[in-house]
Amino acid sequence: NSAHKNSISIAVMPGDGIGPEVMKPAIALMDRALERTGGPKLSYEELDAGAECYRRTGTPMSEEVFEKAAAADAILFGAMGLPDVRRPDGIEIAPQLDLRFRLELFAGVRPVRTIPGAPTPLADPRAKNLDFVLIRESTEGLFTSRGKGEVTPDYVRETWEITRAGSERLFDFALQLGRRRKAKGSPGSVACVDKSGVFRAFAFFRQIFFERAKAFPDIDARAFNVDATALDLIRRPWIFDVLVTENQFGDILSDAGAALMGGMGMAPSADIGLTHGLFQPCHGTAPDIVGMGKANPTAMILSAAMMLDWLGETKQLPSCGAAADLLQRAVDAAFAPGDLRPFELGGEAGTQAITDRVATQLEALP
Amino acid sequence: NSAHKNSISIAVMPGDGIGPEVMKPAIALMDRALERTGGPKLSYEELDAGAECYRRTGTPMSEEVFEKAAAADAILFGAMGLPDVRRPDGIEIAPQLDLRFRLELFAGVRPVRTIPGAPTPLADPRAKNLDFVLIRESTEGLFTSRGKGEVTPDYVRETWEITRAGSERLFDFALQLGRRRKAKGSPGSVACVDKSGVFRAFAFFRQIFFERAKAFPDIDARAFNVDATALDLIRRPWIFDVLVTENQFGDILSDAGAALMGGMGMAPSADIGLTHGLFQPCHGTAPDIVGMGKANPTAMILSAAMMLDWLGETKQLPSCGAAADLLQRAVDAAFAPGDLRPFELGGEAGTQAITDRVATQLEALP
Ligand SMILES: CC(C)[C@H](C(=O)O)[C@@H](O)C(=O)O
Ligand SMILES: CC(C)[C@H](C(=O)O)[C@@H](O)C(=O)O
Repeated sequence: NSAHKNSISIAVMPGDGIGPEVMKPAIALMDRALERTGGPKLSYEELDAGAECYRRTGTPMSEEVFEKAAAADAILFGAMGLPDVRRPDGIEIAPQLDLRFRLELFAGVRPVRTIPGAPTPLADPRAKNLDFVLIRESTEGLFTSRGKGEVTPDYVRETWEITRAGSERLFDFALQLGRRRKAKGSPGSVACVDKSGVFRAFAFFRQIFFERAKAFPDIDARAFNVDATALDLIRRPWIFDVLVTENQFGDILSDAGAALMGGMGMAPSADIGLTHGLFQPCHGTAPDIVGMGKANPTAMILSAAMMLDWLGETKQLPSCGAAADLLQRAVDAAFAPGDLRPFELGGEAGTQAITDRVATQLEALP
Repeated sequence: NSAHKNSISIAVMPGDGIGPEVMKPAIALMDRALERTGGPKLSYEELDAGAECYRRTGTPMSEEVFEKAAAADAILFGAMGLPDVRRPDGIEIAPQLDLRFRLELFAGVRPVRTIPGAPTPLADPRAKNLDFVLIRESTEGLFTSRGKGEVTPDYVRETWEITRAGSERLFDFALQLGRRRKAKGSPGSVACVDKSGVFRAFAFFRQIFFERAKAFPDIDARAFNVDATALDLIRRPWIFDVLVTENQFGDILSDAGAALMGGMGMAPSADIGLTHGLFQPCHGTAPDIVGMGKANPTAMILSAAMMLDWLGETKQLPSCGAAADLLQRAVDAAFAPGDLRPFELGGEAGTQAITDRVATQLEALP
């Protein structure tokens, strides 16, 4: 909605807890990367949403804020939610879920890319160079039932729904991503992850996957059971290229993926729809370390890089894509010497130290 | 149903693929362990069930076989299912699911215990001595909907049901296990794993957990989100003692647990109800290695040890418990030197080599 505008508008929702602490450096680094590549200027509008907002105003995200977010070119989202702030029915404050549903951000993109030099948990050397992507369906599946379960004193029932239309757009997205990755040297395999041996909904899901894959003869289309995938994420995660799965399964598997990268503070994500994109680190609000300068900004910086990449692609702005690449390489270069150990990974590097390292690399890189 | 009988009756269902190959040595080792501890004699009846049975007879488990299994003192179950054998509606052959439902085997007990000397995937030395248990509810949750989803051309709906009665017995089982483990030196923490911040069914589940935990003031009752648990299974699995969760979540998390032990061939399991117990290794039928002598019998042997332990406890037969302990220690001793590397873990040790090692230790141990 804005290739013609002079600047690109970003709705910034810094969120709760450490959200704002990592948002600030990420924006500064992103701006500098765009300057270096001659990219467009981004204009930011800070918007109020989250658990603090709920506590203050009674709503986690006002309609006015929603409208502004929907009108922006992209949404940059911090961590949201606080343990002691819940809706009266006990449900957590998570405006990202509302945005996923209302803006139809159906593709939750969760890259699992280990950064050489950063601490990672698996002993096998092949796990030091992981590079795969998990696509999590984000508008249906079990989440169809979010906050809508049928509650009685004796039982609660939730509805798990998988639609043909929702699955088709999801698989097309994943297969296209597989193709783009293959063009850059990846194996070009895309795997549907389900539990089709037990549930009809997943037999349906898998069948639609193979139907859509027919239009991608260049892609090696596979299917895995969700339990076997949980096993292989630990046993041999290097076999994966693109994984695509249902909402709740994706929620679980993507956290395992984040662990493979070293933790939530290292893991970026994007929620992509046909018209909108939202970018958010995987980590939570970490109330225990707020104000201590200990938050790891890496996931937020990498989420900003994903946003630049997406803007570059959807708005055909190569300078934006170049800035994404530069920012990503600066993060890699920051960790490459192997001495940058974030607090969350048992080290001493806080928000400032990590930001400074990335900033230095941003200047130094060709 | 048999403390008064002269012998204890075991329904043996060797299953498909490598199922029978690992069943045989497990039974021989179990018999020898019982001999050594002066335990009761087990009488085995081999019963036909599984995918081959389905192919041959049109049913994965006849009513006659079901009745015999139900009448036995315990059920020893091999791997079941074959990739190319499915019901007409595409659902896999998995008679264990029928047994879980029909015999109300509500507690899927999946220990995650690493065997020192066996290869394990995590680099952190603390992950070399894991010892926790995941309890998977096995008669409701998403599996309520097994094969019953509402299918239309445009969508499929499954029902996820959590009942008060099912949750109460589940949590009581887990809390009792936590207490027994605490008596042997474990931390005594039991954690409910759910997604209660998003779904009412899980808010209900968690609430019932804390209600039941009131009767266990000696237990440290906690609750974790399922996604955070997937992360922590990789990041710091040594924090866990007893985890208890819904059926489908347990299916996923227990495979991650198996990976931490080195793979499915190392992971035993038990499905326990109020009156019956079924014991089965976590691995599949591995059609690719059938007849090659490569199958790892460890999980099957450890499942047999779990059966002995359960028989010892439920029938008040200390000699049975002692045999369970001896068998488990023989497996530990077999791996202790660090040179026993099963094929599945990239080594050279097949069914016979592993069985022989365990057999030798079974004689040598005091
Ligand atoms: C905060 C929570 C509602 C959210 C989800 O379950 O989608 C989070 O876990 C995620 O993975 O983005
Ligand atoms: C074979 C399959 C139906 C079964 C399940 O999903 O319960 C298996 O994965 C398990 O974990 O026991």
